[in-house]
Amino acid sequence: MKIHDWHTGPYPARVRIALAEKGLQSRVTFVSVSLRKGEHKRPEFLAKNYSGTLPVLELDDGTFIAECTAITEYLDALEGLPTLTGTTPLEKGVIHMMNRRAELEVLDAISVYFHHATPGLGPDVEIYQNAEWGLRQRDKAMRGMCYFDEVLRRQPFVAGEAFSMADITLFGGLIFAELVKLPVPSECDALRAWYARMQERPSVRNRLTMSDPVKAQV
Amino acid sequence: MKIHDWHTGPYPARVRIALAEKGLQSRVTFVSVSLRKGEHKRPEFLAKNYSGTLPVLELDDGTFIAECTAITEYLDALEGLPTLTGTTPLEKGVIHMMNRRAELEVLDAISVYFHHATPGLGPDVEIYQNAEWGLRQRDKAMRGMCYFDEVLRRQPFVAGEAFSMADITLFGGLIFAELVKLPVPSECDALRAWYARMQERPSVRNRLTMSDPVKAQV
Repeated sequence: MKIHDWHTGPYPARVRIALAEKGLQSRVTFVSVSLRKGEHKRPEFLAKNYSGTLPVLELDDGTFIAECTAITEYLDALEGLPTLTGTTPLEKGVIHMMNRRAELEVLDAISVYFHHATPGLGPDVEIYQNAEWGLRQRDKAMRGMCYFDEVLRRQPFVAGEAFSMADITLFGGLIFAELVKLPVPSECDALRAWYARMQERPSVRNRLTMSDPVKAQV
Repeated sequence: MKIHDWHTGPYPARVRIALAEKGLQSRVTFVSVSLRKGEHKRPEFLAKNYSGTLPVLELDDGTFIAECTAITEYLDALEGLPTLTGTTPLEKGVIHMMNRRAELEVLDAISVYFHHATPGLGPDVEIYQNAEWGLRQRDKAMRGMCYFDEVLRRQPFVAGEAFSMADITLFGGLIFAELVKLPVPSECDALRAWYARMQERPSVRNRLTMSDPVKAQV
């Protein structure tokens, strides 16, 4: 399998972490697509993913699977533990709810802020910006962080007692927050403690070097 | 189980159709939440679903599951055929990708258009609007319809050879398009033919009367 991504991207991080959690790194090679050059908006990439977003998983039969949740569902169904998307109906429902909420309320909101209310990927890539909308989304993301802080005061992981896809997605949101210099509110102790615990996971620590051919052989 | 929804809503339609496809209607009672009165934005509802959206599934143990994809995952894992979210890794990956793409490129885009560039649910509910963003999303949705037309020229259903959650989501998008009077482009023959086929399904035909206690007993 191939992963088309950009090594520091918050969305690519989601799939890299999922791969490492499942122990599937050795089955994947990486193809770098430059966000800064806007390669993800060019026709040859749009033929792989209509939405023009990274990452994309390319299977050996030539099928392209885009969207982090979809790629995670694919990888999780292959083999290996832990299960990232749940086993029982209740687990599946709650994990998918919290995963989507982490996108809506934090990660995707910060992405809109970045692309619309900051220089984003630069004028050649950001050909339309709506700064007012971007700033609204920034404020939504800050409220979203406070919501997740409340959640993490009650339970150790985003979807309950176990690590899941929803933790990976919220983590992507906090990586993005760091990149755009939106600090986690200081009163969000539980969210900050969870973020520190996440950064200790090997899957998280090694995500940037995963596509380095030398290190990947280790 | 209870479903908190509004009977004509495009997002509620997704869960109503999923319920009927799985043959689970008799296990659910409906609680009406008025979109027009903005009941979904009041504190008592936000305690059930932080994002303030419909529908929400309430389990007998008091757990609330929001987000259509999450509710569909829950229902699909309970029992019954057809399988809406896939069985093999490939099916799961492709269905989740196309489901998300139907949201991003059609359904969610039309929702933003409705809430931001039309009167939406009225001035008491739409307390912030960004018309320029809404119109951009309308244009995105029109392009999205043309994309799905291309997909449906190659295959009978949105995610391939079988009906799935992705068809339900795109159908929600086209219901919403009708409500806001955005016509499917006339050249999109395959999309129009698929839409007509969808409307023949019993799960789709009966979705509005599902919450009527008299009809629901039949």
